[in-house]
Amino acid sequence: MKKNVLIVGAGGVAQVVAHKCAQNNDVLGDIHIASRTKSKCDAIVESVHEKKAMKQPGVLEAHALNALDIEATRDLIRNTGAQIVINVGSAFINMSVLRACMDTGAAYIDTAIHEEPEKVCETPPWYGNYEWKRADECAQKGITAILGAGFDPGVVNAYARLAKDEYLDTVSDVDIVDVNAGSHGKYFATNFDPEINFREFTGVVYSWQNGQWQKNRMFEIGKEFDLPVVGKRKAYLCGHDEIHSLYKNMDGANVRFWMGFSDHYINVFTVLKSIGLLSEHPVRTAEGQEVVPLKVVKACLPDPASLAPEYEGKTCIGDFVRGVKDGREHEVFIYNISDHKEAFKEVGSQGISYTAGVPPVAAAMLIASGEWDVKKMANVEELPPKPFLRVLNRIGLPTRIRDAEGDRDLVL
Amino acid sequence: MKKNVLIVGAGGVAQVVAHKCAQNNDVLGDIHIASRTKSKCDAIVESVHEKKAMKQPGVLEAHALNALDIEATRDLIRNTGAQIVINVGSAFINMSVLRACMDTGAAYIDTAIHEEPEKVCETPPWYGNYEWKRADECAQKGITAILGAGFDPGVVNAYARLAKDEYLDTVSDVDIVDVNAGSHGKYFATNFDPEINFREFTGVVYSWQNGQWQKNRMFEIGKEFDLPVVGKRKAYLCGHDEIHSLYKNMDGANVRFWMGFSDHYINVFTVLKSIGLLSEHPVRTAEGQEVVPLKVVKACLPDPASLAPEYEGKTCIGDFVRGVKDGREHEVFIYNISDHKEAFKEVGSQGISYTAGVPPVAAAMLIASGEWDVKKMANVEELPPKPFLRVLNRIGLPTRIRDAEGDRDLVL
Repeated sequence: MKKNVLIVGAGGVAQVVAHKCAQNNDVLGDIHIASRTKSKCDAIVESVHEKKAMKQPGVLEAHALNALDIEATRDLIRNTGAQIVINVGSAFINMSVLRACMDTGAAYIDTAIHEEPEKVCETPPWYGNYEWKRADECAQKGITAILGAGFDPGVVNAYARLAKDEYLDTVSDVDIVDVNAGSHGKYFATNFDPEINFREFTGVVYSWQNGQWQKNRMFEIGKEFDLPVVGKRKAYLCGHDEIHSLYKNMDGANVRFWMGFSDHYINVFTVLKSIGLLSEHPVRTAEGQEVVPLKVVKACLPDPASLAPEYEGKTCIGDFVRGVKDGREHEVFIYNISDHKEAFKEVGSQGISYTAGVPPVAAAMLIASGEWDVKKMANVEELPPKPFLRVLNRIGLPTRIRDAEGDRDLVL
Repeated sequence: MKKNVLIVGAGGVAQVVAHKCAQNNDVLGDIHIASRTKSKCDAIVESVHEKKAMKQPGVLEAHALNALDIEATRDLIRNTGAQIVINVGSAFINMSVLRACMDTGAAYIDTAIHEEPEKVCETPPWYGNYEWKRADECAQKGITAILGAGFDPGVVNAYARLAKDEYLDTVSDVDIVDVNAGSHGKYFATNFDPEINFREFTGVVYSWQNGQWQKNRMFEIGKEFDLPVVGKRKAYLCGHDEIHSLYKNMDGANVRFWMGFSDHYINVFTVLKSIGLLSEHPVRTAEGQEVVPLKVVKACLPDPASLAPEYEGKTCIGDFVRGVKDGREHEVFIYNISDHKEAFKEVGSQGISYTAGVPPVAAAMLIASGEWDVKKMANVEELPPKPFLRVLNRIGLPTRIRDAEGDRDLVL
């Protein structure tokens, strides 16, 4: 039983997290939001009040914080009395925020893997390079640390676990598919921080197949999926966080991640990458200025948060899980459909931020209730999936299932 | 009658200029080469000696010079005794180098229009914005200043004048076509300084048609040309320097410039431009660094000089000039074919640098001989074309002609 939430970060996902925490502050208690740029936190606080999102009167405060500064983070956790930290800041701060939680006893939740600025796509399993090195210490100290509790990774891990527990006797394949069929109306934009978005796709594509890590190049393997609501969509084999924990938690099944890309996205990405503009290594201009090209591309692209008002259409993210049930081959597709315009109406963010920001709040609510306050480090598929999916059904991300018996809401 | 040459600049074109000056130092006298980075001049000097390019023993010296510093440029002109300055440095230094020449009495030659860093594609005629404002003073002081004496602008201006003088009674249309059918083997590269190359294509496309400036967008108007040697090639209406003087020197004929582009070039250009990466206006990164995107793109692309060793294939640049001769419609195509590999073998540069660098040396030789030492400012079509084309025939850029009578070397 923990309460009072500190949200670290102030981007599009943090905005969703803040709204959802406010809508559930009867369970979560005080809400604090901290980022390097306090004005961004202030804007989020203002937006929460504007939507009258607070379920009951309570604390909602903005703070300035450099989350790489462990001491400052510890102080903020102690001063605010936060027992739950939701880290939705940049991918570079996981390890320092986790350390501050371990030092103060606060529970830790994040939605994406730790990265070091200079390194792209390290050797698998990625969790083994940073987070899991703190697993023993978390267990010893009784620290609850839930890794990758966004949608993907996060909800899709719970879907995989649910399929294994409830729908199949043995699992042979988990194919996670993430398709954004929405349109933002810009020439080109990324739905997350462009720096993180591109970093995902510039390295080796790792998947788990036949009991080992398989390497491919980005956009090397594409496949058309026939999906509910959004229809037939081409998606490509990508590296992604969830593979790096599911590989060991699905009884040896193949684990692949597929992301939908338009030909236009692929063309722009290919041009930028081929020229070297997606590199995180500095180049020197003729005038002698040292510049990281990727940071300049990011500066030129639209701020992902700015896309929200014009974003239209839906997202479909889910798991095709195949295996054997009662001696016969069986496949289920467990998924969610979200709508960009509805997300904007509710919390002022687009659908991609919505799907990423709601799940860590569900996780926080389960820590608050004790159901997920497991006093150790865990990836989402290591936790009971039903309580999580039940909360998500209630707070904005309902689960559906499609199998031989049809396409329907999942009753949990 | 003037002698001793100061070359300003140390890029691929300057390398060609230095080699060609050395090959003709019996006519041109001492040769000096100056640039911001002296080591680049030293490398050119070394390459000239390596190829044993000096026709006779003589002076060949490298100097450090910031050509925006008029006083330093004046001092260097005086100290070297240079009576002819060939400016093949960046497009931003024309006016300061010209001023230094006007102050010292040296003849001035350049190959491209003056540009201000912050401005792209100003109002036509471009020469009227900067260079021509010094025309009266040049005439008063008896300064020889030959503008745009590369290939295009430069040789193509002489082709237009020759067609008007010798092949047509009245001219209706001048269509200058520049096709590089060579291949450098890189994913993407520009043949000149990427900054200047892209700046040419990001603004309005001005052409002179029906007695007025017509505006188009880049890549809006494309046309297939059937060219000697390189065959059928698609070229696009572009803005280019020579239109901005020919418009008033061709008796009111239409003047258009067409440049060949592959679909791949257009795609890369379109992606970079659409994202804002070709902008000369600074952006601010998330970390607060002020950066000009175009300078970062330049830093990521191959140095044009580095393309030379692998460059294969040929260039075709020429003028389709149409009009009436003896009461009948008539068209001539006056052109040059150059070969990348041959250029590299002779002077260590690729063909594009070769075609741009040989003509200003021919112009210098005509100033040295007195034939073009006109004691005023002139664009190339205002000078007698035959002496120029005769020198070019001899020093590496032979002229050919194709008309109703066939395709042949032009005998002058």
